[in-house]
Amino acid sequence: MAHIKVPEGIPGIRSLAAFRPETGKPLYELAEVLLRKESPLSTAERELIATYVSSLNQCKFCTLSHAAAARELYGDDRETVDKTLENIDGSPVDPKLKALLLIAGKVQQSGKSVTEEDVGEARKHGAGDREIHDTVLIAATFCMYNRYVDGLASWTPTDPEVYGEMGKQLAKRGYQSVKKDQETV
Amino acid sequence: MAHIKVPEGIPGIRSLAAFRPETGKPLYELAEVLLRKESPLSTAERELIATYVSSLNQCKFCTLSHAAAARELYGDDRETVDKTLENIDGSPVDPKLKALLLIAGKVQQSGKSVTEEDVGEARKHGAGDREIHDTVLIAATFCMYNRYVDGLASWTPTDPEVYGEMGKQLAKRGYQSVKKDQETV
Repeated sequence: MAHIKVPEGIPGIRSLAAFRPETGKPLYELAEVLLRKESPLSTAERELIATYVSSLNQCKFCTLSHAAAARELYGDDRETVDKTLENIDGSPVDPKLKALLLIAGKVQQSGKSVTEEDVGEARKHGAGDREIHDTVLIAATFCMYNRYVDGLASWTPTDPEVYGEMGKQLAKRGYQSVKKDQETV
Repeated sequence: MAHIKVPEGIPGIRSLAAFRPETGKPLYELAEVLLRKESPLSTAERELIATYVSSLNQCKFCTLSHAAAARELYGDDRETVDKTLENIDGSPVDPKLKALLLIAGKVQQSGKSVTEEDVGEARKHGAGDREIHDTVLIAATFCMYNRYVDGLASWTPTDPEVYGEMGKQLAKRGYQSVKKDQETV
């Protein structure tokens, strides 16, 4: 049971946005800009970074829902998601995204963990300022969402089908505003 | 030097918002709603929670700027800020805020660290759902800002006077939109 009285039957961060729509609004806008709007990283790559950080933070709700979204967006390459979560060293992603995922993992520990060498490695494989910026901010943002969802013990459904459906909606519609989010995540 | 090319002479998160205003906008709106708009916690109390979490994350820019804002907002009780940062056990805050600060410290480690007992202790001293919600979200949000600022190695001024001025501006004007933030933080 959640630590505060949120609307029943709504999972994860959606229940918290329903409890406090005033903060829900910028939280959803941030996710939409960061994960769906213009970026040199594809939406699949960005959802994978979000999923990877959520898994490091052991946030079950965020890991399962964003993994489902990433699988939808990877399409025929959907196994990329599970292979990356199983073992980052064995991830089939290209060297640029691998280097960015390693930066995201550093950010999960602490912002200070990211070194010039980490950034240099990503640049060596073709990452520019925007890829590096977006990776660090996605990782930092999920360190927030994960703590918000788990720190208030919001409801985490156990039925895998629930996440499959969420993944489809997130892939198709992205992060709608709080008013519309009853139908998405 | 920052890991990416941001405008020179602008410190901390402001330089990152200038690099990417599209994400800067919801990031600043979140801070404004969370730290300045309606809440059962005073603005001084909320800035103290933000400062405490930033100090645990060892983010110098966020700690110094929000400590300065908290000192301004505490006014005659400004020493509350430094006593709390020195040693949370010796903090002169009331038992309710002390229990909330301890929850914030748990969130800094991981959302999962927050127990029913932690929440029960805060409720015993008069905290309701909104205080608990706002505390967890402020703590989670600063785990993001701290990682964003340090993960990209943004500029951290060393002159204490710079932070004194920032504190005054933040206390007086809060978190303006990205366009106006050149004059604030």
